[in-house]
Amino acid sequence: MDFASDNVFGVHERIMNAVVAANAGTSPSYGVDPWTREAEQRLSELFERQVTSFLVMTGTAANALALAQLVPPYGAVFAHADAHVMVDECGAPELFTGGAKMIGIAEPNGKITPGAVARVIAGFIRAEHDPKPAAVSIAQATELGTVYTPAEIGKLAELCRIKGMKLHMDGARFANAVAALDCAPADITWRAGVDVLSFGCTKNGALALEAVIFFDEKLANDFIYRRMRAGQLLSKGRFLGAQMLAYLEGDLWLNNARHANAMAKLLADGLARISGIRLAVEVSANEVFAIMPRTLFQALSGEAHCYEWPGMGSGLVSPGPEEALVRLVCSFRTTEEDVGKLLRLAGAVRPLSAGRQQSAEQRP
Amino acid sequence: MDFASDNVFGVHERIMNAVVAANAGTSPSYGVDPWTREAEQRLSELFERQVTSFLVMTGTAANALALAQLVPPYGAVFAHADAHVMVDECGAPELFTGGAKMIGIAEPNGKITPGAVARVIAGFIRAEHDPKPAAVSIAQATELGTVYTPAEIGKLAELCRIKGMKLHMDGARFANAVAALDCAPADITWRAGVDVLSFGCTKNGALALEAVIFFDEKLANDFIYRRMRAGQLLSKGRFLGAQMLAYLEGDLWLNNARHANAMAKLLADGLARISGIRLAVEVSANEVFAIMPRTLFQALSGEAHCYEWPGMGSGLVSPGPEEALVRLVCSFRTTEEDVGKLLRLAGAVRPLSAGRQQSAEQRP
Amino acid sequence: MDFASDNVFGVHERIMNAVVAANAGTSPSYGVDPWTREAEQRLSELFERQVTSFLVMTGTAANALALAQLVPPYGAVFAHADAHVMVDECGAPELFTGGAKMIGIAEPNGKITPGAVARVIAGFIRAEHDPKPAAVSIAQATELGTVYTPAEIGKLAELCRIKGMKLHMDGARFANAVAALDCAPADITWRAGVDVLSFGCTKNGALALEAVIFFDEKLANDFIYRRMRAGQLLSKGRFLGAQMLAYLEGDLWLNNARHANAMAKLLADGLARISGIRLAVEVSANEVFAIMPRTLFQALSGEAHCYEWPGMGSGLVSPGPEEALVRLVCSFRTTEEDVGKLLRLAGAVRPLSAGRQQSAEQRP
Amino acid sequence: MDFASDNVFGVHERIMNAVVAANAGTSPSYGVDPWTREAEQRLSELFERQVTSFLVMTGTAANALALAQLVPPYGAVFAHADAHVMVDECGAPELFTGGAKMIGIAEPNGKITPGAVARVIAGFIRAEHDPKPAAVSIAQATELGTVYTPAEIGKLAELCRIKGMKLHMDGARFANAVAALDCAPADITWRAGVDVLSFGCTKNGALALEAVIFFDEKLANDFIYRRMRAGQLLSKGRFLGAQMLAYLEGDLWLNNARHANAMAKLLADGLARISGIRLAVEVSANEVFAIMPRTLFQALSGEAHCYEWPGMGSGLVSPGPEEALVRLVCSFRTTEEDVGKLLRLAGAVRPLSAGRQQSAEQRP
Repeated sequence: MDFASDNVFGVHERIMNAVVAANAGTSPSYGVDPWTREAEQRLSELFERQVTSFLVMTGTAANALALAQLVPPYGAVFAHADAHVMVDECGAPELFTGGAKMIGIAEPNGKITPGAVARVIAGFIRAEHDPKPAAVSIAQATELGTVYTPAEIGKLAELCRIKGMKLHMDGARFANAVAALDCAPADITWRAGVDVLSFGCTKNGALALEAVIFFDEKLANDFIYRRMRAGQLLSKGRFLGAQMLAYLEGDLWLNNARHANAMAKLLADGLARISGIRLAVEVSANEVFAIMPRTLFQALSGEAHCYEWPGMGSGLVSPGPEEALVRLVCSFRTTEEDVGKLLRLAGAVRPLSAGRQQSAEQRP
Repeated sequence: MDFASDNVFGVHERIMNAVVAANAGTSPSYGVDPWTREAEQRLSELFERQVTSFLVMTGTAANALALAQLVPPYGAVFAHADAHVMVDECGAPELFTGGAKMIGIAEPNGKITPGAVARVIAGFIRAEHDPKPAAVSIAQATELGTVYTPAEIGKLAELCRIKGMKLHMDGARFANAVAALDCAPADITWRAGVDVLSFGCTKNGALALEAVIFFDEKLANDFIYRRMRAGQLLSKGRFLGAQMLAYLEGDLWLNNARHANAMAKLLADGLARISGIRLAVEVSANEVFAIMPRTLFQALSGEAHCYEWPGMGSGLVSPGPEEALVRLVCSFRTTEEDVGKLLRLAGAVRPLSAGRQQSAEQRP
Repeated sequence: MDFASDNVFGVHERIMNAVVAANAGTSPSYGVDPWTREAEQRLSELFERQVTSFLVMTGTAANALALAQLVPPYGAVFAHADAHVMVDECGAPELFTGGAKMIGIAEPNGKITPGAVARVIAGFIRAEHDPKPAAVSIAQATELGTVYTPAEIGKLAELCRIKGMKLHMDGARFANAVAALDCAPADITWRAGVDVLSFGCTKNGALALEAVIFFDEKLANDFIYRRMRAGQLLSKGRFLGAQMLAYLEGDLWLNNARHANAMAKLLADGLARISGIRLAVEVSANEVFAIMPRTLFQALSGEAHCYEWPGMGSGLVSPGPEEALVRLVCSFRTTEEDVGKLLRLAGAVRPLSAGRQQSAEQRP
Repeated sequence: MDFASDNVFGVHERIMNAVVAANAGTSPSYGVDPWTREAEQRLSELFERQVTSFLVMTGTAANALALAQLVPPYGAVFAHADAHVMVDECGAPELFTGGAKMIGIAEPNGKITPGAVARVIAGFIRAEHDPKPAAVSIAQATELGTVYTPAEIGKLAELCRIKGMKLHMDGARFANAVAALDCAPADITWRAGVDVLSFGCTKNGALALEAVIFFDEKLANDFIYRRMRAGQLLSKGRFLGAQMLAYLEGDLWLNNARHANAMAKLLADGLARISGIRLAVEVSANEVFAIMPRTLFQALSGEAHCYEWPGMGSGLVSPGPEEALVRLVCSFRTTEEDVGKLLRLAGAVRPLSAGRQQSAEQRP
C-alpha cells in the first residue's frame, strides 16, 4: 500500500515486455530507429494532426527543454506559484533557457487565470528593465490534481496570442487530465491553443519516457540540438520508442489513467465520509489532497507512505493549527483493496486523534 | 525641476573635474592604474578594515556579479519581491549566476525579515528538487526609500549564518542610507554581517561607477575573472579610479546624500500638509512615495517628471481607485527652490482634484 | 553484422533480466531505492575505496555534469581536439559549466600530454583576460581506441596538481581500457590521480546507464543539485540501480569488454593482412581504425555499417587521396563469425577496388 | 613614450570636452537622451544607410552581445584562433551566448578564409552531435594589425549566406582599418555582407564607448533586453551619446586613426632598417609586430612599455630561439618624437645585444 507518488510504482507489464522485445538485434542509435519513427507517427494519430515529437527521459528535462525552445534568455515565463517548473525542478528551466525569469502567480486550486497573468504584465512598465513576456506554462493536471477545461486553456491561449507569448503545457499527468475531462487529447492541446506539450508517460506506467510535442513544426526548429546538448538524446533510443509504442497501443495510456483516477475518486469519497477529514480541493485526476488531524497523518504516513504537502494548498481551504494537508496519489497499480485498507486505517485511527485534538484544545 | 530619478541628474563637478584631470599622460590599463589602486585603499579606510573592491560601471552589473560570486547556479537568492534585483534588471542575476533561482518575498515597507525568509526555506522539504538556499540580498536604502537598521541587518545575517547563506547588500543608495541612519559605513555592512556590498556612486553624483566590495578577501577569490567576462573591466580604468577618489574626497559621497535626503524630507513634509496627499511610507532617504489624486499626478508629472510606481507599494497603505502612488526622487542637485516649486504646483492643482475626488466619493 | 558503433547493440541479457526483476512492488523514487544504494556500495568495492557515485542516463550528461562540478564558468578545460567532450556533445559542457572555455589540443593517437597542456597554459599571460586553467579531461579509452597508461595519467595528474586543476576521465569505454591494460580500475583512476570518472556502461551492455564517480567525497558536494536541474535524476531510479548491480555482478562489465577487445584484435589482425588496408593506429580496445581504398569502404559500409571517421585521425598516419579512414567497432555481442564475414567481404572486394584505383590513376 | 597598447592613452580632448559639456542640466536616463538619439542618426549617416545601433561601454561586451544576438546557445562561431573573442575575453562570448561553441581556426596573418571555415563545417557529419554553424566573427583590423579587403570580407559573407550563418565584425580598431584601406565604412561592412559590427571607439580616443551596429533592423530585434541584462545600459546615457557625437564630428575618428597608422608605418620602416630586427607581418594599421633579439626586447620594454606577443604570430615568420615577437602599438597621441626616440633606443641597443647573442651562441 503506497500513496506517496506515481513514481513509486514500477513499469506496466506491457511496456516492460515491449522493452524486452526491442532488445533483439542491432538498431540505428540516437533516435532514428524504427521504433521511434513509428512512435512519432502514432503520436500524430493520437493528436489528430501532424505533430513533431522528441522523446526524452525525464519530465524535468521535457519541461525545461520545451521552455528553452519557446523563451529567449531575457524572457519571462508565467506559471502557477506551486507549479513543478517553479518549485520542483531546482532551476532546470533557468538552466536550459539561459536564465529566463520564472514568475510564479499564486491563485486558488493550482490554476492560473488570464486576468492574473495580464495584471503582472501590466506592471511591466519599465521597458527593457523588465523581462519580455514570452510564455505561459500550465500543468495539466495541476500539482493539486485539478484540471483546466478546454475553455480555460483557450482563454490563456488567447492572452498569449495577444501578448505574443507561447503556451506550454506540463503534461506529467496529461493522461489523467484527459481521462478526467473525457475529451480528446487535441481538445486540451492544439485545439485550445497549446503550442508545446510535455507528454508525460513515466508517472503513468512507463520506465523513463516523456515526449516534447510541438503542434507547429516551425516551433520545433533546431530542437534536436537542444535535446542533444542537454544530454537527453539516448544512444539506445529504440528503448524509448518501444516504450511509447506500448504506451499508446490499445489505449494503455488512457486506461491506466482512468483506473488511477477511479481509485482516487474512491479514496476521496471514503475519506470525505470520515469525521475530521475534509478534502482541500475537489478530486478530478489521480491525486487526493486531504486535510486531517496531524496525529492521524502521522499514524497513516508510515503505512501508506503519503506526504504532507509543502505548497500553498488550494488557497481556499487551509489546514488548521493541528491539521496537516496530505497528498495521496493513486496509480495504474493501485487496487481497490489498497484504497479500502487505507480507509479502514484512517477510520480506525480517527477517534484517538480526535481525542488528542480535544486534549490539545483544552490547553490554556 | 526633475523628480523622475537620481539618474537624470548629471555628474558632480568635483567628480567631473577629477575625470578631466586624470586624462593627462599614459597609464596602465585594465584597473591596475594608480588612481584605482589608491581608490581601493580609500575604500578600506572608509570601511575601517581591509576590503577587497572592484570597480564596475553599472549597478545592475555590480549586483549580478556580486550574487554570481556568492551563489552557485543551483542556489536560491531571497530578496524583496519589489527589489531591483528581482524586477528591474531583466534577469541579469539569472544570467551572471548561471540560472540561480531568484525568490521574491512580499513584505511591507520594501524590507524583508528573517522570519519570512526562514518560512520559505522551511518549505524546502523536497531535497535537491528545491534549490539550495545560498544568499539573501537586501537593498539599502530599499526601493521604497526605507532603510534597514543595523539590528535588522544583524538578524538577517544571523539567519544567513545558521543556514549557510551569504548576505548581499545592494547599495545603489548606500550613501543615502548612511546619511539617514547617521552611522558609520561599517555599522550597516560588515559589522552587521554583510558579506558583499554593491557600493553605488552613479545615482549620487558619479558618471558611471559602482564598486563591488568584499569584506572577506577569501570571498573575492577569482572575482577578476567574473568582472572580465561580464565585459565590466574598463580598459581606461583610471577614469573609474579617479571618479572614486573624488567621490570619497572630503566626504563628497556623504554630503551629497545628506543634501538629497534633506530635500526629500522637505518635500515630504510639504506634501503631507497638502490636503488629499498622504505619504505611503515614512521618508528616510532621498525618495518620497506619495499617494495623491490621479488628476493631481497627471497635472504634476509633466512639470516635475515624476513617475507612478508600479510595485506593490508599502503593503500597508494603498492608493484608492482614483489615486496614484507617485515616486519623487531628490538628488545632490535638487534645490530648495525645486522643492518649493513642486509644492506650490501641487497645492495649486489640488482643489480641482479634490472636487473630482469628492464627486467620486458621492457615487454609491 | 554491424560495426557502426557500440550503441547499435542492445542490452546484455543479464542486465535486461535485472531490469525486469526490479519491477516488482513499489520502491522509493529519485535514487534512494535499495538497488541504487547497493550499487553505490559495489562501486566502492570495485574501486577499492569509498567513492561517491551518482547514476545518470547518458554519457554526455555524465561528462558535462562532472566538468560543471570541477570547473567554474570562467575556467578552462583542456582536452584532446578530437575528444567527445570537444566535438560530439553539441556544447553540453559549455551549457552545464555555464560557459567554461573548452580548449582542444591536437596531438597524435588521440592522447594529450602534460607538455602540450603546459604550453597552452604558459601562453596565458594576459591575467583575467585568459580563462582560469581548471581541469584536464581525458578519455579512457580515447576516441581513437588508444589507452593511457597509468604512468601517462599520473603525469597529467601531476601537472594538474601543480597548476591547481582537476583531472576528469571520460570513461565511456572505461571497461575496454581496463581490459586492454589488464589493471585494476583503481590503477587508472584515483591511484593515478584522477578526480572524477564518467563510468560508462551503456556502450558496454547497459540500457541507459552512466555513473559519475568522485574519488574525493568533498568534490561531490552539492552534486545532487546539478544532477537534478540537468533533468538527470530518474524518478524510477531503481531501474538504474538494477542495471548497475547486474553490470558489476560476476564481472560482467569486464568480461563484456574483454570479448569486445578480443574481437577488435581479431578484426585488426585480419584487416592488416589484406593488401591495400593498413591500420591507422594500434588497436588496444574495441575499435579498429583502418585506412582502406575509398571504393572498398563504399562497398563495405552498406553491409558492415561502418563509418568514415571525421576527426584528425592518429595524426601520424593519414589516408591518401583515394583512401578513407574507417572506424569499425566491436561489442560484447560481436561474434567471431561477424568478424570473419567482414574479413571475407573486405578480402573479396579488394581486387575490384584496386582495379578502380588503377583506372583512376590513369586519368591525366 | 608608451607603445604598450591603444588603451594606455587617455581620451581625446574634443571627446572629453563633449563629456563635460553634456553635464549641464537634467536629461532622460537609460539611453533615450537627445545626445544618444542624435548619435544614432550620425551613425546612419556615416554608414550611408539606416542602421540600428546600441551604445555600450566595453569592446568585450560589444562583441559578446553581438554574438549572443546572432547565435543560438547550440550554435558554433568560427573565428581566428588568435582573435580577441577567442583568447582575450575570458569566455564572455560563452557567457552571453549561453554556451555557444567558439571554434578557433589557425591561419596566417591573423585572417581566416572561407576555405578553412568550410573545411571545419564539412567535418560536421555527426548531425546534432556537432553544434549548428551560426556565425563567423572577424576582426577588422585583426589582432595582428592586418586588414581584410572588401573582397575578402565578401567571400566570407558569401560562405555565410550559403551556410545560413551571420557575419560579425569585431571593429575594436575599425577606424584604423578604414584608414588603412582608404575606403568608406560601408565598403567593409554591409556592402561586403557584414551583419553586425562592434564599432570600437575607446582604443581610438573615447573614454568608454563602443557601439553594436546592426545593418538589418530585424536582426536587432530585442537587443535592448540583452544589453540591459548584461549590465551595459548606462543610466547616465547622455555621456555615451556625447562621446559618440564628438568622435564622429569633423571625422575625428578617422583622423585619429590616420595619425596612428602613420606613426606605425614610420615606426615599422625605421625598425626594418635596424639590423637584427625584422617585421613579422606587413604593417597596415596602428600595430607593429617586430621580431628582435630577446636582449633587445628586454632593454626596450622598460622604456617603451611594449609587450612580447603570446599568440601564434603571423604563422609565416617566426622568432628564432633567442628572439622575441614584440608588439608595438601607436595611437592618436603617439608623436613622431616618440617614434624617433624608440628607434634611436633600438638602434643603440642593438650592437650590445648582438654581442650577447654571439656569446650565447659560443656556448657549447
